This record gives sequence, C-alpha cells and structure tokens, in this order.
Amino acid sequence: MTVDLTPRPEHQFTFGLWTVGNPGRDPFGHEVRAPLDPVESVHRLAELGAYGVNFHDDDLVPPGSSAQERETILKRFRAALDETGMKVPMATTNLFSRPVFKEGAFTANDPDVRRLAVAKTLDAIELGAELGATVFVMWGGREGVEADAAKDVGLALDRYKEAVDLCCEHIRDRGYGMRIALEPKPNEPRGDMFLPTVGHALAFIGELEWPDMVGLNPEFAHETMSGLNVTHGVAQALWHRKLFHIDLNAQRIGKFDQDFRFGSEGIRDAFYLVRLLEDSQWDGMRHFDAHPYRTESAAGVWEFAAGCMRTYLILKDKAERMREDAEIQEALRGAQAHRLAEPTGSLDSIRAAALDEVALADQGYGHERLDQLVTELLLGVR
Amino acid sequence: MTVDLTPRPEHQFTFGLWTVGNPGRDPFGHEVRAPLDPVESVHRLAELGAYGVNFHDDDLVPPGSSAQERETILKRFRAALDETGMKVPMATTNLFSRPVFKEGAFTANDPDVRRLAVAKTLDAIELGAELGATVFVMWGGREGVEADAAKDVGLALDRYKEAVDLCCEHIRDRGYGMRIALEPKPNEPRGDMFLPTVGHALAFIGELEWPDMVGLNPEFAHETMSGLNVTHGVAQALWHRKLFHIDLNAQRIGKFDQDFRFGSEGIRDAFYLVRLLEDSQWDGMRHFDAHPYRTESAAGVWEFAAGCMRTYLILKDKAERMREDAEIQEALRGAQAHRLAEPTGSLDSIRAAALDEVALADQGYGHERLDQLVTELLLGVR
Amino acid sequence: MTVDLTPRPEHQFTFGLWTVGNPGRDPFGHEVRAPLDPVESVHRLAELGAYGVNFHDDDLVPPGSSAQERETILKRFRAALDETGMKVPMATTNLFSRPVFKEGAFTANDPDVRRLAVAKTLDAIELGAELGATVFVMWGGREGVEADAAKDVGLALDRYKEAVDLCCEHIRDRGYGMRIALEPKPNEPRGDMFLPTVGHALAFIGELEWPDMVGLNPEFAHETMSGLNVTHGVAQALWHRKLFHIDLNAQRIGKFDQDFRFGSEGIRDAFYLVRLLEDSQWDGMRHFDAHPYRTESAAGVWEFAAGCMRTYLILKDKAERMREDAEIQEALRGAQAHRLAEPTGSLDSIRAAALDEVALADQGYGHERLDQLVTELLLGVR
Amino acid sequence: MTVDLTPRPEHQFTFGLWTVGNPGRDPFGHEVRAPLDPVESVHRLAELGAYGVNFHDDDLVPPGSSAQERETILKRFRAALDETGMKVPMATTNLFSRPVFKEGAFTANDPDVRRLAVAKTLDAIELGAELGATVFVMWGGREGVEADAAKDVGLALDRYKEAVDLCCEHIRDRGYGMRIALEPKPNEPRGDMFLPTVGHALAFIGELEWPDMVGLNPEFAHETMSGLNVTHGVAQALWHRKLFHIDLNAQRIGKFDQDFRFGSEGIRDAFYLVRLLEDSQWDGMRHFDAHPYRTESAAGVWEFAAGCMRTYLILKDKAERMREDAEIQEALRGAQAHRLAEPTGSLDSIRAAALDEVALADQGYGHERLDQLVTELLLGVR
Repeated sequence: MTVDLTPRPEHQFTFGLWTVGNPGRDPFGHEVRAPLDPVESVHRLAELGAYGVNFHDDDLVPPGSSAQERETILKRFRAALDETGMKVPMATTNLFSRPVFKEGAFTANDPDVRRLAVAKTLDAIELGAELGATVFVMWGGREGVEADAAKDVGLALDRYKEAVDLCCEHIRDRGYGMRIALEPKPNEPRGDMFLPTVGHALAFIGELEWPDMVGLNPEFAHETMSGLNVTHGVAQALWHRKLFHIDLNAQRIGKFDQDFRFGSEGIRDAFYLVRLLEDSQWDGMRHFDAHPYRTESAAGVWEFAAGCMRTYLILKDKAERMREDAEIQEALRGAQAHRLAEPTGSLDSIRAAALDEVALADQGYGHERLDQLVTELLLGVR
Repeated sequence: MTVDLTPRPEHQFTFGLWTVGNPGRDPFGHEVRAPLDPVESVHRLAELGAYGVNFHDDDLVPPGSSAQERETILKRFRAALDETGMKVPMATTNLFSRPVFKEGAFTANDPDVRRLAVAKTLDAIELGAELGATVFVMWGGREGVEADAAKDVGLALDRYKEAVDLCCEHIRDRGYGMRIALEPKPNEPRGDMFLPTVGHALAFIGELEWPDMVGLNPEFAHETMSGLNVTHGVAQALWHRKLFHIDLNAQRIGKFDQDFRFGSEGIRDAFYLVRLLEDSQWDGMRHFDAHPYRTESAAGVWEFAAGCMRTYLILKDKAERMREDAEIQEALRGAQAHRLAEPTGSLDSIRAAALDEVALADQGYGHERLDQLVTELLLGVR
Repeated sequence: MTVDLTPRPEHQFTFGLWTVGNPGRDPFGHEVRAPLDPVESVHRLAELGAYGVNFHDDDLVPPGSSAQERETILKRFRAALDETGMKVPMATTNLFSRPVFKEGAFTANDPDVRRLAVAKTLDAIELGAELGATVFVMWGGREGVEADAAKDVGLALDRYKEAVDLCCEHIRDRGYGMRIALEPKPNEPRGDMFLPTVGHALAFIGELEWPDMVGLNPEFAHETMSGLNVTHGVAQALWHRKLFHIDLNAQRIGKFDQDFRFGSEGIRDAFYLVRLLEDSQWDGMRHFDAHPYRTESAAGVWEFAAGCMRTYLILKDKAERMREDAEIQEALRGAQAHRLAEPTGSLDSIRAAALDEVALADQGYGHERLDQLVTELLLGVR
Repeated sequence: MTVDLTPRPEHQFTFGLWTVGNPGRDPFGHEVRAPLDPVESVHRLAELGAYGVNFHDDDLVPPGSSAQERETILKRFRAALDETGMKVPMATTNLFSRPVFKEGAFTANDPDVRRLAVAKTLDAIELGAELGATVFVMWGGREGVEADAAKDVGLALDRYKEAVDLCCEHIRDRGYGMRIALEPKPNEPRGDMFLPTVGHALAFIGELEWPDMVGLNPEFAHETMSGLNVTHGVAQALWHRKLFHIDLNAQRIGKFDQDFRFGSEGIRDAFYLVRLLEDSQWDGMRHFDAHPYRTESAAGVWEFAAGCMRTYLILKDKAERMREDAEIQEALRGAQAHRLAEPTGSLDSIRAAALDEVALADQGYGHERLDQLVTELLLGVR
C-alpha cells in the first residue's frame, strides 16, 4: 500500500484542547499528567498536520479570569494560531463541571440556574466568534435525571428549546452566521439524559424557532454506548441535512463513556463511518473528541493524536479502494444495492403489478460474500 | 388498599391476537401451545375486561385465503366482536415472517419486493378499516442490515418515506381517517434496524408528505433494549403531539426482545410510564404487546393477560396517590419541580440578571428523599 | 403494614466511609459537597441505626500521614466507635486512585509497582486488624487493560494469585484470622478488568495457596452492569460457601458504574437478593457501597443512608410474607419448585424409567401467575 | 501479503451440521432455505478444507427414528466421512427445542423431565462415541428462569452437578475417554441462564465428582453478549487448563444471540482470540458455531463457511507477524509486558524494598503507540 498517510490541513482534522490536554483523571483516579498549555497544543497539533483546535470556554479562559487576563490569554493564543495557520472551527461551553449545574443547566428546575447557563453560553459564543468559530456545539451534560420524579420531561424540553432559541437569537442579533450543533448522549454523567440519541435531537430541532440554524454533532462513542449503529445515525442526520459537526473516537457498547483513540475499538464501524463521510463528500471538520489512555505520559499524548488521524486516512483510503474494487462492486450488484435508488412507483402501478412472490423469495443476496470482501479489504488482504 | 383493580372497557386495555395467541416458539425451541382461535381470544379477553383486540393481517386471515374464506373469517370474527362489545382499535401488517421480505420490505433493494410490501400493506389497511381500526401500526421488522455495505441508508430512508407516503395517499383516497403509527426498534431480527428509537422515527416523520397523519407507537421493550429511558421517549413523543399508540410489556436492557408481561421487569420504569400516560390524560389505547412465558399451558395465557391489566391498574392507582401524597408533593417542591414551568426569560433580562453562583450551587434538591418516597409508594408502604 | 422499619444494629447494616463521604465528583464534574469527617460519619450512622463502618486505608488515614498523625487519627476514631458502639467489620485498600497504579497494581507489568501495591495492602491489613476488621476486601480497580496487547492474561493471573497468596501468608503469620473477599467488576475504570464477574473470581480462588481464606464480595452494581442476574451470582457464591461480604446498591444494565441508593433501581432484583440473603440465613454484614446523588447537599446524604436501610427492611419483610403467603406457596407448588430438591437418581434408574414425554411436555408451570403474585407482593397489594 | 489462505485439514477447522444447515428461521421469520442433507454438508465442507463436522443428536438422527433408521443414517454418514477423510471431533445433544424441556432439562423442577434429559444425553454420548467424538459439549439452553421465584438456584446447581456427574459416570463405565465441555451463556432463550459465563462454569467444575473430565467450550458470541472480553475469558480457561473446545463466531455486545460469520463483527476481538489460541499452541479444534445471514440462498451458505476459515487464517498470519514485527516488539518492551513474568517476590523482600513512588508513577507505558501499531497490523498497513 503506497498511499500517503501524512495528515495535512486539507484533511480538516481538528482536536479539542480538552482531548490532548486531558490529565487522566477518572471516577476512581487522580490526574496523571500535568496541565497542557493551549499554546503548546496548538503548536504540537500543527506539527502533526491538524487543521485546527476547538475548545470549551473554560479550556482556554479559566473561570474567574478578569477581562485583562482574558485579553492576555487570547492574544497569546491568537499568536499561536497565526504562527501555525491553525484554525478554530468550533467552540463550545462547559455547562457540566461546576456545582451550580448539578441539577441541570438549560433544563435546571431553578430559573436562575438556567439564566446562569444561558449567560455563560452567550459569553462562550462571543469567545468562539472572536476566534472565528463557525460552529457552536451544545452538549447538555447535566440535562437529565436520576430521580425521575424530579423532572417533567415535557417542561424540560420546553426549557431546552427556550435556551437554544435564545442562543440563536443572540447569534442573529450579532450577525455572526454561526451555526449550533447539538450533541446527543444517552447517559453519564446523569442517569438518563435528554436528547439521548441523534434521532431525539433531530426531532427536537423541528420544534425550534430557527431550525435552520441548528443541526447535530453526533459522537461515535455516544451513539455506540446505546448499541446503536453510529453510521446509520450519521446517515440519517445527513438525510435531514443536519450534520453540522462530528466527534470521532472509539467506544464499546454498553460501557462507560470511553472516548478512546479513533479506530482503537470498532474498526468496522469506524470504516463505515469514514466511508459515509467521504462518499457523501461531507465538507465539515473531522474532529477527534477522545483522550489518551491514563497509562500515557506526555509523549503518549502525541502518539494518540497522530494515531487518530492516521487511522482515519487508512480508512479513507480503503473507502476509495472499495469504490474501485471490481469484485466488491460486483457483489454490490448481486445484492441489488443500486436498485434501492429506483422508486417503488405509484399506487396504481403497485396495485397493477404482477409479482411472483416465490421467485422473489428465492433470490439470494450474497451478503456473506459481500461482507467477507469488505472484511478482507479492512484486513488489508485485498 | 381498597382500590378496585378490576379491568373494565373504560380502561381501554387492548391485546394483539398474536400476544395471547403466541404458541411459544423461540429461536431455539418449538411451539409449546396449540394455535388459539381468534374468536376464542375475543371472548376470553372480553371476559377479563379488555376493551378490544388488534391484529396483523395474517393473524386473522391466513395468507393464501380466498376472498370467500376471508369473508367467512370476518363474519365469524365480527360476530364475536358484536357479541362481546369488543373493538378493533388498531390493525397492522406482517412484513417480516415471509421469506420474500428477508432483505427488507419497504426498504428492500429489489423494487418488486417493495411493491409487494406496499401492496400487502394496502390490503391490511383495508382489512383494518373494515373492522373499524383507526390506527394502523407499521413495524419495519426487516428494514435493516447485517452487512452494512449492502444498503445505502439515505436511499433506504427515501424508500421508507415513499412507502409511508403511499399508504397515507391510499388512506386519504379512501377517506378512512386512519392514522399511521410507526414502531421503532433498534435490532432483532436484523443486526441493526432503521428508525431504531422513538427519536429517529419522530425526526423521520418531519420529512413525510403528510406528517400530520403519522405518529408513533413506542414500545416499552424496544426502547429499553437500548438502555434508553422509555418514559422519556414517550414524553418526547407527547411533546411533539405524536403519541398515537403504545405497546406495553417488559424487558431488561441489553437483551433479546423479551416482550414479557407488563410490570414483570422494570417496575419503576413501568410506574413512571403509567404515571405519564395518566397525568397527561392521554386518551389512546393501553395496548399490551407481550407474550406468555414458554413455561405456560393454555391456562397461563389468561393469567398473563389478567396480570398485564391488573399491574397497570395498580400503578395507575399509585400515580393518583402520588398526586395526593403531601410528603411527596412537598419533596417535589423542595426539588423545585414546579419551577421548571417558569420561563427562563428574555436575552435582556438574562444579561441583566445578578446571579449568585455560590448560593445557587449550595442548594440541595432533596432527590434522595423524593426518590425514596416514590420507592416506598411503589412498595406499598405509604 | 405494621412492620417496624427502624434500622437497628442487629440488622448488621454497614456503610463505607467513602459512601456517605462521597463529595460528588464525577468524570465530568467537580466536588459538590465538603469532605466529611469520619468521626461525624460514625456518629450520624450510629444515630440512623447502622451496625458499623468500613473504610479504605486512605479514607481514614490520609496518604503521607506520619506515624504520629496516624495514631492521633486512630485514637479519635476509636473513641467515636466506643462512644457509639459502632464496629469496623471490614477494611480494604485503595489501589486505584494514585498515579503509580495507572497500569495495574497486583498485575502491573513493573514488579516494583506490584511490590508497592502489596506493601500498601499489608499496611491496610494492619490498619483493619487494629480496628477489628474480620474481612478484608480486595477490589482490583486497575487490574485490566485497554490495549490488549500490553498484558498477557495468564501471567496477570499468576501475579494476581501471587499477591493474594502473599496477603494470606501475612495474615497467617500475624495470626489475624481475617478473611479476604475479592470484589469482581467487569470494567470501569479499565476498559476490561480481570476477574470480571462472581464466576471468574470463584474459579480463581480454586487455584490459590489457601483457598479457604478467600471468598467473595459481590456487588449489586458490578454484576448488573454486565446484565447478569446478581441474585444468581450471589446464590452461586453461597453454593460454593464463598459469600464473605456483599456490596448493596443499585444500577442499570449496560451503563457506567452508578452505585445508586439500594432499591432505587432494580426493585425486583433487590427483592430477590434480600430474599436470598434472608432465606439462606446468611450471617454477614449488609454493607451499602453506594453514594448520594450529586444533586444532594449534606442533608441529602443522611436521607440516602436512611433510605438504603429502610428499603432493605421493607424487602426483608416482603421476603417473610412470601414464605407465609398461602397463594404464593400454592403457586410455587404448582411450579413444582420443591421438587428440585429430589435427586434425579442413579444411571440405572434413569435408564429404566418409563417416561411419557408427551404428558410431561403438556404440563404448565404457572409461572405467569406466580410471578404476578410476587409482583403484587412487591407493590404492596397483597 | 503472499501468505497461503487456503484452509486445510491440519488447521483443524470444524463446523456444526446445524451451522451450514441453518434454514434461516428466526423469532420473527420462517425458514428461507431448504433442509441440508448432512452428507452433502460433509462433502461440501471437505471440499472447502475443513477437518471435520460436529452435531447435535437430532441434527443427524431425527427424533423418533427407529433403530433401523438410525443404522441406515449412520452408515450413509460414515461413508461420507470415510470418503472425505472428515472427522467428528465433537458431539452434543439438543435439550432445548422440544416442549418437554421448556422449564429446564438438567435443572427442571420435575425429576422426570430431568431423567428424560439425562437419558437423551446418554444416548447422544453413545452416538458421539460411535462416530469417534472425543469431546461432548453441554449447552444448557433451557437451564434458567424468567420468573425467579420458580427456581432455587442452589438446588438447581445441585441438580446440574448431579446430571454432569451421571454423564461422567456413564463415560467412565463405558471407557470412552470422552471429555465434557460446558458451554456458558448468559441469556436467550431463558431470561437468565445458569452458568452464564466462562467464570461461573469454571467455578462449577471445581465441585464436580470428576472435575478432570470436564472443561469448557467458550463461545465468542456468548461471552460478548455480556460485554465481557472473550479473549480474557478464554485465557482464564487456559490458565485453569480447562479449554476443551471453542465456538467461534461474531456478535455485538448487548444484543440477541447473533452467531454471525467469524470476524464479521469484532475484528479486533477476533484477532486477539486467534492470537491467544495460536500463541498458546492450543491443540484443539477451531470450531465455527455460526450461521449464514437469512438473506442468503444455498450458495451463500458456502461463502459463509469459506469466509469463517479464511478470516481465521488471515488473523493467524497477523499473529505470526506480530511476533516478528520489530517495532511492535519494541513497543511491548516499552510497556514492560515481558516483566509480568517476573515474580513479585517474598513478603520479606517486599517489606524491605525501597521504592520510589514518584518515579514509578512518572513512567509512561506507551499503550497508545502499541495499540496503534496493532491496529495498523490489523488494517494491513504494516
């Protein structure tokens, strides 16, 4: 295989500051790595071939910073961006770490907590806009419950809609042209969370004041946790023209939120997802929302980042090969895959059709062969 | 507890013919019970206090029946309905058992298979309409894949939409006033199925030709399989005004589709679901889509049916008690549950708000006490 | 129901210092509650009716304490125990929080890390012995992998065995009479952990040097995470005479380790577990390894603790009622439950038996009725 | 890659008659393929390079066959074996399909049902012995419950042990030298099954009369259903010297029992499992217990069988390459993988060790790089 696997800016790979900067704390263990200077992250990621970095407000500007401190931080950060050519395509806000949001943020029962959440989000939108972000991600990490009685779900959705509408209004008022991407997740840290899957979030958008401004940021791990097929979810988001951003990582079904290096689990799922993005010529960022294993020292962090991109490129190459592989294409024809584009027809034509159920039932579709060929493509033996 | 737990027609309990009639076949075992005459089911369920019965086309009229045989069957079945006062509020079609649908029905790659699926559905709509059904359920049991390469998901959704639109067109042409309810399911029998959750189906409806005619038939087991909170899903369906029907049963997370007697697993989840339906004054059917354990002889079938209804009534009574329980109501106020109805406010008011984050963060919400009180209500000690 | 639900020492309820003392930190959020003085925990739990408290070494004596500081802490702690009559039936060690154990403790690849882990455990055994603990729990929170290649599982089990054998040797050398209880868990914080279930740990014990000294500490949440039936696991541990301790809490299948208040999820599972412990007259501690929701202030912590015990007593009472409920007992006879005690017989008698398969197959077992009766017992309507 | 991927008898690949012979029936669908003559299966599998076939009693000799019919069948079947050189290394019995076993077989409450189960097993042992099987697999497909009250688990384990002991006694009486391999499964078709994992079965064996005669038949799908790491389970079975047989297939976590073509899901897991079997020089059969997708006609069945073997050989080759890959071996040294073989030492040496926790904690283990290298080996780019 002589394909070039060097990540370059045109591949549009991005990382969150919180990903390479993750210090390795987990529910049972303390930090294992020192904090990472965002400026260092920008330089290191640029060297590795990334296109840009994304951040939560608090990743870049520590909570409690004065206006002067904020300015100093931004100046230094902008200098790093300018020096490296790195972009900030996406920004987001942290509405989950601080104790005030323990009962919810946009859907907190206490209206003052909601006001605080919206106000913090407006500030984060400003911060993102200042640095050129065109997508603003909303992950409702505390929007949910453990004690079901404590929350009326219908009202919670009313409030969720209200908060998103307010943020859209703000963006319109300012003329930012920024789009919002909702990030679904089924659970963790809350027992059950609102907008738990791509589907629930897509439906929710239909009820918003400015639905065109809002789309999705599906995450490999979050959809996979529920055992759903992440590629199907992303494909449905594309079908609704609502794929605004994507979070790539790795996860096993039915486990805690693992956020492993892209491709380290679920290779087949990762492949089909890359293939979907590439075949649909999706023009957004390939964002990695993952973190290095806790076993890693600082050096491992950059191996982790390089690995995410490298695996993407390997899978992208395989997706191209799949389009050119004569045997796979023949198997796809055997499965009648192309005929799914043919309309089923009108009511009259259907009523009039003379169909031979026995003959139709006797058809084999050759999925075993097709799937085996794809497996061998993945394993590099074709 | 002196509450009357006798099921009566006004409770609007319904059963599928396929539920009490389930012969106990499973992936590893043969049938253990003899086929049940639909007419007997009508009589037995009427005696137990049910409101009506629902069916797949094939449950009532065996595939291959002549027009004459169909007429004879319907006459006899109608007589049983008339005699007992039982209704047929819902009908559906079986697009999953016959070999012809092995690769899909509405989303089969072969257009002729899709035509057959639509034609069969049109016939089932006729059958339902003849017997007074006002809801037509669509469960896409074969709409999905094992070998992902074999199916373009975007095209599959195009075809799914086309089929549902055709059925709506037919219903409109005939002037039936029937509504369609989509039933989501994540997997089984297919490795991954399209429209896997309430959310995905709700979003899909937004793209249909006549979205007002189409809503949802969420199922306890299907949502629970993915570890999603079924009550949250149903609440979101209600929020979108799309709860057209419901399938009640029991299921453990992350297992095969169990379809157990309502309340036999997930008591707490069952309670919150009943409470939601009752508190929202939902006026649809309380339909049980479950089957008796394979350990049961014919007698056990009716214990099963009676148990489903009885548990619903017990939980309904608890939902009423919850509304009247002073201590629970006080705990709800402590959790500020009622304040979720208060709007968060305008952008200006939010920007101007003077909020004390420390004080807000210091609040406790008393969820442990609230949840314990509900647990004790469920356990019958309050 | 006039049953007395007041927890008393004779009920043998215990709590870990880390449970009521949990400050509410989670993977996405900061601490929400102030640290709790162990002495306060002893007093508050005593007032609530608990029998004792358990701890990790680090819960009681902060890492890095001098010998003098340790002595001061112990003196004060012992005074609280003496004053309240509270006991310390179990102690354990924290081999998961500190960075040095990030790659494993007893099964770390680096022998020096293993030595550190064993040495820390020996110290914790001393601490437990000083305070009268008769059970020493071992939870291998870091024994596992994310990157499978990094660890030879057979060698890891060799090292695991070596470490447990060393601890047994130490206990024997000192003549403590303490027993070790292994606590299985499938994953979190590691991607996959060794000794993932009750079964794997039971099998492992058979290979130890002093198998009689080692048994199990099954946890409701840990077994349930994998979708296993926790009562079956505990019953098998009892069958092997290896139930040395138990961790009671609540958990939903296929989710992050929730450690909720006992009975708050999985009421039915909680009931069968309590019934098993009570019917088998198990004489160990009823230990709660759970933590309050993050929504709680200090007051909620004690509601949480009281709720755990109260729910246990409610379920214990139901287990007693079940034994006395004539209808349930009749249903059990209908299910032939008592006949499981009859031996199947000798080879000769089996070969000679004239068995009527058709008649045997025709039997119904009445599980629907039996299960419904138990459900109604749980719901308090019988 | 110039490696030869042609399956040959020396690779010891075997298939169950029920695998290629699976007619495609599932819980929601009818058969899609005609029954397959066992003799044809023998010939076709021999042509594809398999070593042998395995069967349930009923797969080969239909229930109710007369002694004469049985003889005719065996004669014809033996002729096919002789002609092709195919072996029958394993036999088993079907204790799950017939209605008589609906409440259990070895653990049925009714002793007569248990007698029938044991008698049927003795006959199946005879059948296996006649055809040269040296391993007899026991899968307790009906040993479990839905209604927990109906079964005392301790007594069930007593009866399970009794039945296995009886079968061992029979084998010893006859001098067959056959070994028994227990096959664990967590659920399906029962709600919860006894001996749900490799661990539970390993522990159970320790209580048997002749533990040396009994080992395990772990299945990829069955362990994976629970989210357990199948390679860890098999490694533990090897550690206990109890791997007697293995069932290879594919499965996603938390779903119905899928039994897909080996390697079609979970490529990484499949690789580590193959690597373990090959690196440990395990000398048993590589048995495939999978079935073709329901989309397949007869032709697809043989693509399925060929694919299972081919993927195994690809992964086996990768395991060999891993041993020879200098960079991977260096990464393994960086992870200190080899040091896990070093004993931790004696109590005295541990107490005396001067360990620098800070330095030990600062070590990085390079798992990101190691895992990425393995990923790239799997993807065929190294």
